[in-house]
Amino acid sequence: MMASMPGYTNDKEAVQARLRRIEGQVRGLQRMVEEDRYCIDVLTQVSAVKSALESVALLLLNEHVDHCVTDAIRAGDGTEKVQELTQAVERLVRS
Amino acid sequence: MMASMPGYTNDKEAVQARLRRIEGQVRGLQRMVEEDRYCIDVLTQVSAVKSALESVALLLLNEHVDHCVTDAIRAGDGTEKVQELTQAVERLVRS
Amino acid sequence: MMASMPGYTNDKEAVQARLRRIEGQVRGLQRMVEEDRYCIDVLTQVSAVKSALESVALLLLNEHVDHCVTDAIRAGDGTEKVQELTQAVERLVRS
Amino acid sequence: MMASMPGYTNDKEAVQARLRRIEGQVRGLQRMVEEDRYCIDVLTQVSAVKSALESVALLLLNEHVDHCVTDAIRAGDGTEKVQELTQAVERLVRS
Repeated sequence: MMASMPGYTNDKEAVQARLRRIEGQVRGLQRMVEEDRYCIDVLTQVSAVKSALESVALLLLNEHVDHCVTDAIRAGDGTEKVQELTQAVERLVRS
Repeated sequence: MMASMPGYTNDKEAVQARLRRIEGQVRGLQRMVEEDRYCIDVLTQVSAVKSALESVALLLLNEHVDHCVTDAIRAGDGTEKVQELTQAVERLVRS
Repeated sequence: MMASMPGYTNDKEAVQARLRRIEGQVRGLQRMVEEDRYCIDVLTQVSAVKSALESVALLLLNEHVDHCVTDAIRAGDGTEKVQELTQAVERLVRS
Repeated sequence: MMASMPGYTNDKEAVQARLRRIEGQVRGLQRMVEEDRYCIDVLTQVSAVKSALESVALLLLNEHVDHCVTDAIRAGDGTEKVQELTQAVERLVRS
Protein backbone atom coordinates (compact mmCIF):
# COMPACT_ATOMS: atom_id res chain seq x y z
CA MET A 1 0.00 0.00 0.00
CA MET A 2 2.86 2.40 0.76
CA ALA A 3 4.68 3.98 -2.13
CA SER A 4 8.43 3.90 -1.78
CA MET A 5 8.48 7.71 -2.18
CA PRO A 6 6.09 9.78 -0.10
CA GLY A 7 4.05 12.57 -1.73
CA TYR A 8 6.17 15.32 -0.13
CA THR A 9 9.40 14.12 -1.76
CA ASN A 10 9.75 17.19 -3.99
CA ASP A 11 8.98 19.50 -1.05
CA LYS A 12 11.09 17.65 1.50
CA GLU A 13 13.43 20.57 2.10
CA ALA A 14 10.51 23.00 2.48
CA VAL A 15 8.79 20.66 4.97
CA GLN A 16 12.00 20.22 6.97
CA ALA A 17 12.64 23.98 7.00
CA ARG A 18 9.15 24.56 8.40
CA LEU A 19 9.59 21.83 11.03
CA ARG A 20 12.93 23.29 12.13
CA ARG A 21 11.28 26.70 12.47
CA ILE A 22 8.48 25.14 14.56
CA GLU A 23 11.12 23.45 16.73
CA GLY A 24 12.67 26.91 17.23
CA GLN A 25 9.27 28.35 18.14
CA VAL A 26 8.76 25.62 20.76
CA ARG A 27 12.18 26.39 22.25
CA GLY A 28 11.14 30.06 22.21
CA LEU A 29 8.09 29.08 24.26
CA GLN A 30 10.37 27.41 26.82
CA ARG A 31 12.41 30.62 27.08
CA MET A 32 9.23 32.67 27.56
CA VAL A 33 8.15 30.39 30.42
CA GLU A 34 11.68 30.43 31.88
CA GLU A 35 11.58 34.26 31.86
CA ASP A 36 8.13 34.26 33.55
CA ARG A 37 6.49 36.00 30.62
CA TYR A 38 2.85 36.96 30.90
CA CYS A 39 0.38 34.04 30.40
CA ILE A 40 -1.50 35.72 27.55
CA ASP A 41 1.74 36.38 25.64
CA VAL A 42 2.74 32.72 26.01
CA LEU A 43 -0.77 31.65 24.88
CA THR A 44 -0.56 33.92 21.81
CA GLN A 45 2.70 32.22 20.85
CA VAL A 46 1.20 28.74 21.45
CA SER A 47 -1.59 29.67 18.98
CA ALA A 48 1.05 30.79 16.47
CA VAL A 49 2.86 27.43 16.72
CA LYS A 50 -0.46 25.59 16.34
CA SER A 51 -1.14 27.61 13.19
CA ALA A 52 2.33 26.83 11.81
CA LEU A 53 1.75 23.11 12.44
CA GLU A 54 -1.52 23.29 10.56
CA SER A 55 0.26 24.91 7.62
CA VAL A 56 2.69 21.98 7.50
CA ALA A 57 -0.25 19.56 7.68
CA LEU A 58 -1.98 21.32 4.77
CA LEU A 59 1.21 21.21 2.71
CA LEU A 60 1.64 17.48 3.41
CA LEU A 61 -2.04 16.89 2.63
CA ASN A 62 -1.82 18.73 -0.68
CA GLU A 63 1.26 16.78 -1.78
CA HIS A 64 -0.29 13.51 -0.60
CA VAL A 65 -3.41 14.05 -2.74
CA ASP A 66 -1.37 15.39 -5.66
CA HIS A 67 0.88 12.33 -5.71
CA CYS A 68 -0.10 9.27 -3.63
CA VAL A 69 -3.88 9.59 -4.01
CA THR A 70 -3.61 10.63 -7.66
CA ASP A 71 -1.35 7.65 -8.45
CA ALA A 72 -3.71 5.23 -6.68
CA ILE A 73 -6.73 6.60 -8.58
CA ARG A 74 -4.87 6.33 -11.89
CA ALA A 75 -4.02 2.72 -10.99
CA GLY A 76 -7.74 2.13 -10.42
CA ASP A 77 -7.24 1.64 -6.71
CA GLY A 78 -8.31 4.89 -5.11
CA THR A 79 -11.08 3.82 -2.72
CA GLU A 80 -8.89 2.91 0.23
CA LYS A 81 -6.70 6.00 -0.23
CA VAL A 82 -9.77 8.28 -0.24
CA GLN A 83 -11.07 6.83 3.04
CA GLU A 84 -7.62 7.09 4.59
CA LEU A 85 -7.45 10.73 3.48
CA THR A 86 -10.84 11.59 5.01
CA GLN A 87 -9.75 10.00 8.29
CA ALA A 88 -6.52 12.06 8.27
CA VAL A 89 -8.52 15.26 7.67
CA GLU A 90 -10.86 14.26 10.51
CA ARG A 91 -7.94 13.78 12.92
CA LEU A 92 -6.62 17.20 11.90
CA VAL A 93 -10.00 18.97 12.24
CA ARG A 94 -10.87 17.36 15.56
CA SER A 95 -7.42 17.49 17.21
CA MET B 1 -1.45 45.52 34.43
CA MET B 2 1.00 42.62 34.43
CA ALA B 3 1.59 40.78 37.66
CA SER B 4 5.26 40.14 38.40
CA MET B 5 4.46 36.43 38.65
CA PRO B 6 2.53 34.74 35.84
CA GLY B 7 -0.41 32.44 36.62
CA TYR B 8 1.54 29.31 35.70
CA THR B 9 4.25 29.91 38.34
CA ASN B 10 3.28 26.91 40.48
CA ASP B 11 3.09 24.70 37.37
CA LYS B 12 6.21 26.04 35.69
CA GLU B 13 8.03 22.71 35.79
CA ALA B 14 4.99 20.84 34.42
CA VAL B 15 4.62 23.40 31.59
CA GLN B 16 8.33 23.16 30.75
CA ALA B 17 8.22 19.34 30.79
CA ARG B 18 5.33 19.38 28.33
CA LEU B 19 7.08 21.90 26.07
CA ARG B 20 10.26 19.82 26.04
CA ARG B 21 8.21 16.77 25.10
CA ILE B 22 6.57 18.74 22.28
CA GLU B 23 10.04 19.84 21.11
CA GLY B 24 10.98 16.14 21.03
CA GLN B 25 7.85 15.34 19.04
CA VAL B 26 8.73 18.04 16.47
CA ARG B 27 12.25 16.58 16.14
CA GLY B 28 10.57 13.19 15.72
CA LEU B 29 8.59 14.66 12.83
CA GLN B 30 11.84 15.79 11.20
CA ARG B 31 13.22 12.26 11.51
CA MET B 32 10.05 10.80 9.96
CA VAL B 33 10.39 13.16 6.99
CA GLU B 34 14.12 12.42 6.75
CA GLU B 35 13.30 8.68 6.60
CA ASP B 36 10.64 9.27 3.89
CA ARG B 37 7.87 7.97 6.09
CA TYR B 38 4.38 7.70 4.61
CA CYS B 39 2.48 11.04 4.38
CA ILE B 40 -0.49 9.84 6.42
CA ASP B 41 1.75 8.63 9.26
CA VAL B 42 3.49 12.03 9.33
CA LEU B 43 0.08 13.76 9.31
CA THR B 44 -1.14 11.60 12.21
CA GLN B 45 1.88 12.68 14.23
CA VAL B 46 1.35 16.36 13.29
CA SER B 47 -2.20 16.05 14.69
CA ALA B 48 -0.78 14.53 17.89
CA VAL B 49 1.61 17.48 18.33
CA LYS B 50 -1.25 19.91 17.69
CA SER B 51 -3.27 18.16 20.38
CA ALA B 52 -0.34 18.32 22.83
CA LEU B 53 0.03 22.07 22.17
CA GLU B 54 -3.66 22.57 22.89
CA SER B 55 -3.25 20.74 26.19
CA VAL B 56 -0.48 23.16 27.18
CA ALA B 57 -2.70 26.06 26.13
CA LEU B 58 -5.57 24.77 28.27
CA LEU B 59 -3.25 24.35 31.27
CA LEU B 60 -1.92 27.91 30.85
CA LEU B 61 -5.48 29.20 30.42
CA ASN B 62 -6.69 27.45 33.57
CA GLU B 63 -3.82 28.83 35.65
CA HIS B 64 -4.26 32.29 34.15
CA VAL B 65 -7.94 32.42 35.15
CA ASP B 66 -7.25 30.81 38.52
CA HIS B 67 -4.60 33.39 39.39
CA CYS B 68 -4.27 36.49 37.19
CA VAL B 69 -7.96 36.91 36.33
CA THR B 70 -9.08 35.96 39.84
CA ASP B 71 -6.68 38.49 41.41
CA ALA B 72 -7.85 41.23 39.04
CA ILE B 73 -11.51 40.53 39.83
CA ARG B 74 -10.83 40.56 43.58
CA ALA B 75 -9.06 43.90 43.13
CA GLY B 76 -12.22 45.17 41.41
CA ASP B 77 -10.44 45.42 38.07
CA GLY B 78 -11.53 42.39 36.07
CA THR B 79 -13.14 43.89 32.97
CA GLU B 80 -9.99 44.28 30.91
CA LYS B 81 -8.68 40.86 31.97
CA VAL B 82 -11.96 39.19 30.90
CA GLN B 83 -11.83 40.76 27.43
CA GLU B 84 -8.18 39.81 27.07
CA LEU B 85 -9.07 36.24 28.06
CA THR B 86 -11.88 35.98 25.50
CA GLN B 87 -9.51 37.22 22.80
CA ALA B 88 -6.92 34.61 23.78
CA VAL B 89 -9.55 31.85 23.60
CA GLU B 90 -10.62 33.19 20.20
CA ARG B 91 -7.04 33.04 18.87
CA LEU B 92 -6.79 29.46 20.16
CA VAL B 93 -10.15 28.36 18.68
CA ARG B 94 -9.58 30.01 15.31
CA SER B 95 -5.88 29.18 14.88
CA MET C 1 -24.30 26.21 41.85
CA MET C 2 -26.45 27.72 39.10
CA ALA C 3 -27.30 31.37 39.25
CA SER C 4 -30.95 32.14 38.53
CA MET C 5 -29.84 34.50 35.75
CA PRO C 6 -27.32 33.28 33.21
CA GLY C 7 -24.37 35.47 32.26
CA TYR C 8 -25.82 36.26 28.82
CA THR C 9 -28.99 37.85 30.23
CA ASN C 10 -28.12 41.36 29.04
CA ASP C 11 -27.18 40.02 25.60
CA LYS C 12 -30.07 37.61 25.27
CA GLU C 13 -31.55 39.35 22.24
CA ALA C 14 -28.16 39.51 20.50
CA VAL C 15 -27.54 35.80 21.18
CA GLN C 16 -31.00 34.87 19.88
CA ALA C 17 -30.56 37.02 16.76
CA ARG C 18 -27.27 35.23 16.00
CA LEU C 19 -28.85 31.80 16.57
CA ARG C 20 -31.76 32.65 14.28
CA ARG C 21 -29.27 33.74 11.62
CA ILE C 22 -27.38 30.46 12.03
CA GLU C 23 -30.69 28.56 11.71
CA GLY C 24 -31.25 30.43 8.44
CA GLN C 25 -27.74 29.52 7.27
CA VAL C 26 -28.43 25.83 7.98
CA ARG C 27 -31.67 26.02 5.98
CA GLY C 28 -29.65 27.72 3.24
CA LEU C 29 -27.33 24.68 3.28
CA GLN C 30 -30.35 22.39 2.78
CA ARG C 31 -31.40 24.48 -0.24
CA MET C 32 -27.89 24.29 -1.69
CA VAL C 33 -27.93 20.50 -1.39
CA GLU C 34 -31.47 20.35 -2.79
CA GLU C 35 -30.28 22.37 -5.81
CA ASP C 36 -27.27 20.06 -6.31
CA ARG C 37 -24.81 22.87 -5.73
CA TYR C 38 -21.13 22.12 -6.12
CA CYS C 39 -19.55 20.26 -3.15
CA ILE C 40 -16.86 22.88 -2.54
CA ASP C 41 -19.45 25.69 -2.42
CA VAL C 42 -21.48 23.72 0.13
CA LEU C 43 -18.31 23.07 2.15
CA THR C 44 -17.40 26.78 2.12
CA GLN C 45 -20.82 27.57 3.55
CA VAL C 46 -20.47 24.83 6.20
CA SER C 47 -17.21 26.48 7.29
CA ALA C 48 -19.03 29.83 7.50
CA VAL C 49 -21.72 28.34 9.76
CA LYS C 50 -19.04 26.75 11.94
CA SER C 51 -17.35 30.13 12.26
CA ALA C 52 -20.68 31.80 13.19
CA LEU C 53 -21.27 29.15 15.88
CA GLU C 54 -17.83 29.83 17.32
CA SER C 55 -18.64 33.54 17.48
CA VAL C 56 -21.75 32.76 19.53
CA ALA C 57 -19.67 30.49 21.77
CA LEU C 58 -17.12 33.27 22.33
CA LEU C 59 -19.88 35.76 23.17
CA LEU C 60 -21.44 33.32 25.68
CA LEU C 61 -18.01 32.59 27.14
CA ASN C 62 -17.22 36.27 27.56
CA GLU C 63 -20.52 36.98 29.32
CA HIS C 64 -20.13 33.87 31.47
CA VAL C 65 -16.72 34.97 32.75
CA ASP C 66 -17.83 38.60 33.09
CA HIS C 67 -20.84 37.65 35.23
CA CYS C 68 -21.06 34.08 36.58
CA VAL C 69 -17.34 33.48 37.11
CA THR C 70 -16.76 37.02 38.38
CA ASP C 71 -19.63 36.70 40.90
CA ALA C 72 -18.33 33.34 42.11
CA ILE C 73 -14.81 34.72 42.58
CA ARG C 74 -16.14 37.76 44.48
CA ALA C 75 -18.11 35.36 46.69
CA GLY C 76 -14.82 33.55 47.38
CA ASP C 77 -15.99 30.48 45.53
CA GLY C 78 -14.30 30.60 42.15
CA THR C 79 -12.34 27.35 42.02
CA GLU C 80 -15.11 25.12 40.70
CA LYS C 81 -16.22 27.76 38.18
CA VAL C 82 -12.68 28.11 36.82
CA GLN C 83 -12.35 24.35 36.25
CA GLU C 84 -15.77 24.23 34.63
CA LEU C 85 -14.73 27.11 32.36
CA THR C 86 -11.50 25.38 31.28
CA GLN C 87 -13.47 22.24 30.46
CA ALA C 88 -15.94 24.25 28.36
CA VAL C 89 -13.06 25.87 26.45
CA GLU C 90 -11.54 22.41 25.93
CA ARG C 91 -14.81 21.06 24.47
CA LEU C 92 -14.92 24.07 22.15
CA VAL C 93 -11.28 23.78 21.04
CA ARG C 94 -11.39 20.02 20.52
CA SER C 95 -14.88 19.78 18.95
CA MET D 1 -15.11 22.55 -14.49
CA MET D 2 -18.23 21.71 -12.48
CA ALA D 3 -19.85 18.35 -12.95
CA SER D 4 -23.62 18.49 -13.38
CA MET D 5 -23.96 16.07 -10.46
CA PRO D 6 -22.17 16.88 -7.21
CA GLY D 7 -20.15 14.21 -5.41
CA TYR D 8 -22.76 13.83 -2.64
CA THR D 9 -25.54 12.82 -5.06
CA ASN D 10 -25.77 9.24 -3.76
CA ASP D 11 -25.75 10.49 -0.16
CA LYS D 12 -28.09 13.40 -0.70
CA GLU D 13 -30.78 12.08 1.65
CA ALA D 14 -28.21 11.33 4.37
CA VAL D 15 -26.73 14.84 4.03
CA GLN D 16 -30.19 16.44 4.18
CA ALA D 17 -31.17 14.33 7.21
CA ARG D 18 -28.04 15.52 9.04
CA LEU D 19 -28.67 19.15 8.09
CA ARG D 20 -32.27 18.94 9.32
CA ARG D 21 -31.03 17.50 12.59
CA ILE D 22 -28.52 20.34 12.90
CA GLU D 23 -31.32 22.83 12.21
CA GLY D 24 -33.25 21.20 15.06
CA GLN D 25 -30.22 21.48 17.33
CA VAL D 26 -29.90 25.20 16.55
CA ARG D 27 -33.59 25.70 17.40
CA GLY D 28 -32.93 23.73 20.59
CA LEU D 29 -30.20 26.27 21.39
CA GLN D 30 -32.72 29.09 20.96
CA ARG D 31 -35.07 27.36 23.41
CA MET D 32 -32.24 26.92 25.92
CA VAL D 33 -31.46 30.64 25.73
CA GLU D 34 -35.18 31.50 25.93
CA GLU D 35 -35.43 29.39 29.11
CA ASP D 36 -32.35 31.11 30.62
CA ARG D 37 -30.42 27.87 30.78
CA TYR D 38 -26.98 27.92 32.36
CA CYS D 39 -24.22 29.36 30.11
CA ILE D 40 -22.01 26.26 30.32
CA ASP D 41 -24.91 23.99 29.29
CA VAL D 42 -25.60 26.22 26.28
CA LEU D 43 -21.88 26.19 25.41
CA THR D 44 -21.75 22.39 25.62
CA GLN D 45 -24.61 22.22 23.14
CA VAL D 46 -22.92 24.77 20.82
CA SER D 47 -19.84 22.48 20.78
CA ALA D 48 -22.10 19.52 19.90
CA VAL D 49 -23.59 21.42 16.95
CA LYS D 50 -20.10 22.42 15.80
CA SER D 51 -19.07 18.77 15.92
CA ALA D 52 -22.18 17.72 13.93
CA LEU D 53 -21.36 20.36 11.28
CA GLU D 54 -17.83 19.00 11.00
CA SER D 55 -19.22 15.51 10.47
CA VAL D 56 -21.31 16.80 7.55
CA ALA D 57 -18.23 18.54 6.18
CA LEU D 58 -16.20 15.33 6.38
CA LEU D 59 -18.95 13.37 4.62
CA LEU D 60 -19.14 15.98 1.83
CA LEU D 61 -15.35 16.01 1.57
CA ASN D 62 -15.17 12.23 1.31
CA GLU D 63 -17.80 12.10 -1.45
CA HIS D 64 -16.17 15.03 -3.25
CA VAL D 65 -12.80 13.25 -3.39
CA ASP D 66 -14.40 9.90 -4.18
CA HIS D 67 -16.32 11.32 -7.16
CA CYS D 68 -15.43 14.82 -8.40
CA VAL D 69 -11.68 14.70 -7.68
CA THR D 70 -11.41 11.08 -8.80
CA ASP D 71 -13.20 11.86 -12.09
CA ALA D 72 -10.97 14.86 -12.74
CA ILE D 73 -7.81 12.84 -12.09
CA ARG D 74 -9.00 10.06 -14.42
CA ALA D 75 -9.67 12.71 -17.07
CA GLY D 76 -6.06 13.86 -16.61
CA ASP D 77 -7.16 17.15 -15.13
CA GLY D 78 -6.72 16.80 -11.37
CA THR D 79 -4.31 19.63 -10.51
CA GLU D 80 -6.88 22.37 -10.10
CA LYS D 81 -9.25 20.08 -8.16
CA VAL D 82 -6.46 19.11 -5.73
CA GLN D 83 -5.62 22.76 -4.97
CA GLU D 84 -9.30 23.57 -4.54
CA LEU D 85 -9.60 20.62 -2.13
CA THR D 86 -6.65 21.73 -0.03
CA GLN D 87 -8.14 25.22 0.21
CA ALA D 88 -11.49 23.76 1.34
CA VAL D 89 -9.73 21.71 4.04
CA GLU D 90 -7.84 24.83 5.12
CA ARG D 91 -11.08 26.82 5.49
CA LEU D 92 -12.51 23.96 7.55
CA VAL D 93 -9.43 23.60 9.79
CA ARG D 94 -9.00 27.33 10.37
CA SER D 95 -12.68 28.28 10.74
